[in-house]
Amino acid sequence: MQITPLVELKVRVERLQAKMLEKGLDGVIIMENTDLFYFAGSMQQGFFFIPSTGEPLFLVRRNYERARSESSWENIFPLESLRDIPKFIADHGIAALRKMGLELDVLPVKIYQSIGKIFSRVDIIDISRAIREIRMIKSPYELEYFRQAGKKALAVYRQIPSLLQEGKSELLFSAELENLYRRAGHQGVLRMRAFNAEMYFGHVYFGESGALHTFVDSCTGGRGLTTACPQGAGRKTLKSHEPVGVDYASIYEGYIVDHTRTFSLGALPGDLERAYEVAVEIQEAIIKQAFPGASCVDLYQLALDLAEKRGLAFNFMGCGPEHVKFVGHGIGLEIDELPIIGKGSPYNLLEGMVVALEPKFIFPGRGMVGLENAWYISHNGPEKLSPIPDKLVSVPL
Amino acid sequence: MQITPLVELKVRVERLQAKMLEKGLDGVIIMENTDLFYFAGSMQQGFFFIPSTGEPLFLVRRNYERARSESSWENIFPLESLRDIPKFIADHGIAALRKMGLELDVLPVKIYQSIGKIFSRVDIIDISRAIREIRMIKSPYELEYFRQAGKKALAVYRQIPSLLQEGKSELLFSAELENLYRRAGHQGVLRMRAFNAEMYFGHVYFGESGALHTFVDSCTGGRGLTTACPQGAGRKTLKSHEPVGVDYASIYEGYIVDHTRTFSLGALPGDLERAYEVAVEIQEAIIKQAFPGASCVDLYQLALDLAEKRGLAFNFMGCGPEHVKFVGHGIGLEIDELPIIGKGSPYNLLEGMVVALEPKFIFPGRGMVGLENAWYISHNGPEKLSPIPDKLVSVPL
Repeated sequence: MQITPLVELKVRVERLQAKMLEKGLDGVIIMENTDLFYFAGSMQQGFFFIPSTGEPLFLVRRNYERARSESSWENIFPLESLRDIPKFIADHGIAALRKMGLELDVLPVKIYQSIGKIFSRVDIIDISRAIREIRMIKSPYELEYFRQAGKKALAVYRQIPSLLQEGKSELLFSAELENLYRRAGHQGVLRMRAFNAEMYFGHVYFGESGALHTFVDSCTGGRGLTTACPQGAGRKTLKSHEPVGVDYASIYEGYIVDHTRTFSLGALPGDLERAYEVAVEIQEAIIKQAFPGASCVDLYQLALDLAEKRGLAFNFMGCGPEHVKFVGHGIGLEIDELPIIGKGSPYNLLEGMVVALEPKFIFPGRGMVGLENAWYISHNGPEKLSPIPDKLVSVPL
Repeated sequence: MQITPLVELKVRVERLQAKMLEKGLDGVIIMENTDLFYFAGSMQQGFFFIPSTGEPLFLVRRNYERARSESSWENIFPLESLRDIPKFIADHGIAALRKMGLELDVLPVKIYQSIGKIFSRVDIIDISRAIREIRMIKSPYELEYFRQAGKKALAVYRQIPSLLQEGKSELLFSAELENLYRRAGHQGVLRMRAFNAEMYFGHVYFGESGALHTFVDSCTGGRGLTTACPQGAGRKTLKSHEPVGVDYASIYEGYIVDHTRTFSLGALPGDLERAYEVAVEIQEAIIKQAFPGASCVDLYQLALDLAEKRGLAFNFMGCGPEHVKFVGHGIGLEIDELPIIGKGSPYNLLEGMVVALEPKFIFPGRGMVGLENAWYISHNGPEKLSPIPDKLVSVPL
């Protein structure tokens, strides 16, 4: 169990303080789980106050003792009531709070209103974009966890061919994979930041299930077991010569390596095999350009152009009206981090970003073929964090 | 895969419409996953508009086709842009929207602000309490799913003694239980409504792990595998004569049956065995009184008094400063539903409520002993929805 070192936490807080000065903020209060873990080093519930200069203050509702043992910061105090927050901040030396940032992309309105009453003279603005942009650039400390998550993904990947049997259900196959991950130390909880977004490990799909869309912002969804959870593995059983999609998230110390591979029992039809080769070709084309400075919009356009050129525009990243408008996305403590490598993305690649690239083709009634890898953007170019062979795996019948 | 029948959805919407008339609301827009599933019958992303009288309108962003196949309602349309919502509502016959309810307990501020701009002349109030009170009373249709979830819990419970071996880690034991649930059709995703609340299947703990508190609003937490997910199974290995707590959520068609049992390898020390007996005694005392009309505050007080009388007040529902102030809570599509059976609860039991009762004792450095069952409150008294024997299970060494 890792404790985030103080030197790592300090750099994170200082990066936010630099943004606070730009925006004229006197303070930020961090409240959301993942941001708490990132800045405070502990997910215990409370209010992590960051002044524009100087040391932060962690006011903990539960569990105080555990927060002290998890967080490397000094100023940690138990909090009885929300109403005590201003006094703690004043005692911390911040006399006049005029403008404060909160995580308005995730904070529920009722909590925001309670905070607003306590800080009735304070101008409250949204700081979520700045937080997400800081978290978008990973440190060497974080990079090591991605590498470990990638190794775990490889270990599970190697066992997949032996799990593919005709007649096996998606549910059973999925349960087997999840069990392998879990035994290897997967935390179970997979975090997404967007409202209403949820996912369990990832998705598996046999054949036509891979062409089903659902509410999640992804080009695939799967059937799921129930309308109460309409995604992921369903009850379809495996047939030979159909694509098996495995889109899973390996997690180590909170860090996610999102990856996808396509398998089959017996060879795939030729057109699907060729589509898989185009997916690899698109990945290679992007990777060749994926140096710091490359525009995310340009990388997406490059993918679109290549799909078009190979006659697969209709099937690329969804089909018909259900295309998603991206080919990649940032990953980290959440699976939906910045940057989006897609339409309208304002970002250029920067050293330290970690992105999942997922060129996929959807064939209605037949399924998904494609792959996904996680990449660290270094000044030397991209480092593959999912050390899994890229080839299509057809298990002999 | 169940499709919620129209007659069931109509009753739910009519119950909300009755509350809307009381509050002078012209409409409610439902946006959150679980509420969408409850009222629209589909969790596909969109805006489910309920006028104060007449038929609702489901405007779907993604996936429209799937929403049509999952929801039994008539008026389902694809939505391109948020800005189109007012026109859809006007075309639906609701000309002047003056006062509207939203789920302000879960809706992020940024989304609320976007909706506020679109409905700039509409007074927006919080409707979440009314929604939670409607969902608090379960229908015969819903009751059947709880019963099925209870049956699945029993099937897993029966296999637990054979999984207890000295030296086995919490992680491996937990992975084995999760695998049993998953193969039996568990959806994986466990929903909680509170901000920052999250959980994976539930918790297992061996010995002292059962006495660790964490950020989750529960009297137990477990160590977890990482500070990035500080709850549930950790790496502690099983010793003889220590309490094994299994606090898991069985789920069927979205409905949760939360249940806890205590096991051991070889007999427990006498004082822990006696504490378990007191937990059963507290459960029995509550159940005798758990008829419609009983006050949730009184039922909690009854539990507190009995724990005090047996000399176990310090250990009841936490220890020292870390007591939680309840002995039970509503369950349904989320594990943290109304009513709370605890301090300050404004509710009396009503026919149709489903509650988890969880008298537990925490012994610092030694662990948790206690049990939890799910109960349906009928006019004849409580029906046990977790058909698991209540006795402490000591597996012979």
